[in-house]
Amino acid sequence: MNGHPPRLIQGLWCATLTPVTERGAIDHRRFAAHAHHLFAQGVDGIAPFGTTGEGQSFSVAERREGLDALLAAGVPAARIVVGTGCASLAETIELTRHAVGAGCTGCLVLPPFFWKEPADDGLFAWYARLVEGVADARLRIVLYHLPQVSAVPLSVDFVARLAAAFPGIVAGIKDSEGKWEHTQALLTRVPQLTVVIGHEPDLPRLMRAGGAGTICGVANVYPGLVRALLSPGVAASDEARIAKFIEILFSVPFLAGFKCMLADRSGDDGWRNLRPPLLPLTADQQRKLRELLVQGGFPR
Amino acid sequence: MNGHPPRLIQGLWCATLTPVTERGAIDHRRFAAHAHHLFAQGVDGIAPFGTTGEGQSFSVAERREGLDALLAAGVPAARIVVGTGCASLAETIELTRHAVGAGCTGCLVLPPFFWKEPADDGLFAWYARLVEGVADARLRIVLYHLPQVSAVPLSVDFVARLAAAFPGIVAGIKDSEGKWEHTQALLTRVPQLTVVIGHEPDLPRLMRAGGAGTICGVANVYPGLVRALLSPGVAASDEARIAKFIEILFSVPFLAGFKCMLADRSGDDGWRNLRPPLLPLTADQQRKLRELLVQGGFPR
Repeated sequence: MNGHPPRLIQGLWCATLTPVTERGAIDHRRFAAHAHHLFAQGVDGIAPFGTTGEGQSFSVAERREGLDALLAAGVPAARIVVGTGCASLAETIELTRHAVGAGCTGCLVLPPFFWKEPADDGLFAWYARLVEGVADARLRIVLYHLPQVSAVPLSVDFVARLAAAFPGIVAGIKDSEGKWEHTQALLTRVPQLTVVIGHEPDLPRLMRAGGAGTICGVANVYPGLVRALLSPGVAASDEARIAKFIEILFSVPFLAGFKCMLADRSGDDGWRNLRPPLLPLTADQQRKLRELLVQGGFPR
Repeated sequence: MNGHPPRLIQGLWCATLTPVTERGAIDHRRFAAHAHHLFAQGVDGIAPFGTTGEGQSFSVAERREGLDALLAAGVPAARIVVGTGCASLAETIELTRHAVGAGCTGCLVLPPFFWKEPADDGLFAWYARLVEGVADARLRIVLYHLPQVSAVPLSVDFVARLAAAFPGIVAGIKDSEGKWEHTQALLTRVPQLTVVIGHEPDLPRLMRAGGAGTICGVANVYPGLVRALLSPGVAASDEARIAKFIEILFSVPFLAGFKCMLADRSGDDGWRNLRPPLLPLTADQQRKLRELLVQGGFPR
């Protein structure tokens, strides 16, 4: 699609998994190696500490150190959109300021997710104070709509209001609800925003409708498959393949499923660990996942 | 009721409001004055940084400083049960260890509230790592069941399992769901726990059934009314009165309503402030609340 405004990001971005040790510490070496491996496979950028990255299971200090370690390992800040949302505003400001100072392309910011059914005026005040608190013209916010987990939706009206109030600063939205009507309304109502989605099967129609691309979890394990969904000439067989893969993935707790796949593929059992309250797959779940992947024709 | 095991707390505890400045900083002086005022009115103890205290809107550093300031202002640690739950385990350990080190009677711990529908095994692992991470025999956990806000319920089976695994350490539960059947099941199934509730109208039957008392919000504004509900000879008129008060309170956003009442009563407008995404009452809401209170016979 021609004529779209400049985009903050586009193409294939990976909602990066966070490798942790058995006791739950971030494994910085494995984390950076995964990022470089993704780039080598054609991934355009990474989004650490989103939901797939178990961002809310890490402290502010761990998230700062995790980002710093990626940068120190040669991951370019220009290829990072980092999850900086926290339950509290003060901590969201701290992480966002740190990411902006490090030169990251954008910050993925959940709404404050403890308080349910907040008034739009209250949510607006929260994001406005974030912008004021960071106080840096380089700030680029990617709003994060994930109501099935955050339990705090961002309505299209609210997104439009915020984007109008902070042009350029509120630069995009990751719509991970997986409801096409919501995505479509965003594309129409807030065309100045960079719209990316998390639900991979919707990518072909997103690209046809002028969306920017994806920040998604499947890119951790099958980046080539996601890339195929972004191309104008996407094949029906690729659309069937992603649908099949998502069906298999959701037959187990899916974040643990992703990690199991990376562990199986790399022979590196450390990838199986998650932070409580999330758990690694049980032996039975692992067997089931492997069988379904083989049956579905998904290579390691 | 005779024969109950030793209780961690009992009687009238206040889920303390947190006064903040217009820019959202905790007003330590006003906070301590409020605590002392509550004690002077017969409140047994305070529970800062719970939900009524907007705990999740403050950073770890602010919550530490807030507790330290209360202690420095002469609030006895023995009269404090402090909210130390956070979305992340590492930060929950930090706040809990700080509270235990300060000698607080107990720590009120929400489940990790970002992840929805966690497996009980995962929740168990989370609380187990909290106990290991704090590594202090003085630790006393009060579980915090508030599914209508946290979106993560603690089932009776789960509470029983956790209490059995950590006897003495898992010492109580604040059941703030407001469903009597859940409270009753806790009293029956986990009699070794100190059971307190948040929903004031259930207090008479809680006390008849052997419950320990309350940690509640109404104690910020009408501690005498709550005290009456705890006495064996509670009058029907007091039961009617609390029902009426709750009805009035819920006619506005209720945390802001509490703060408005304290502001009106003290003449101290600073009490009106809340942290985003929560907002102070609008002028219309304030008028409505004042009218209903006058009509209901609730004195300033």
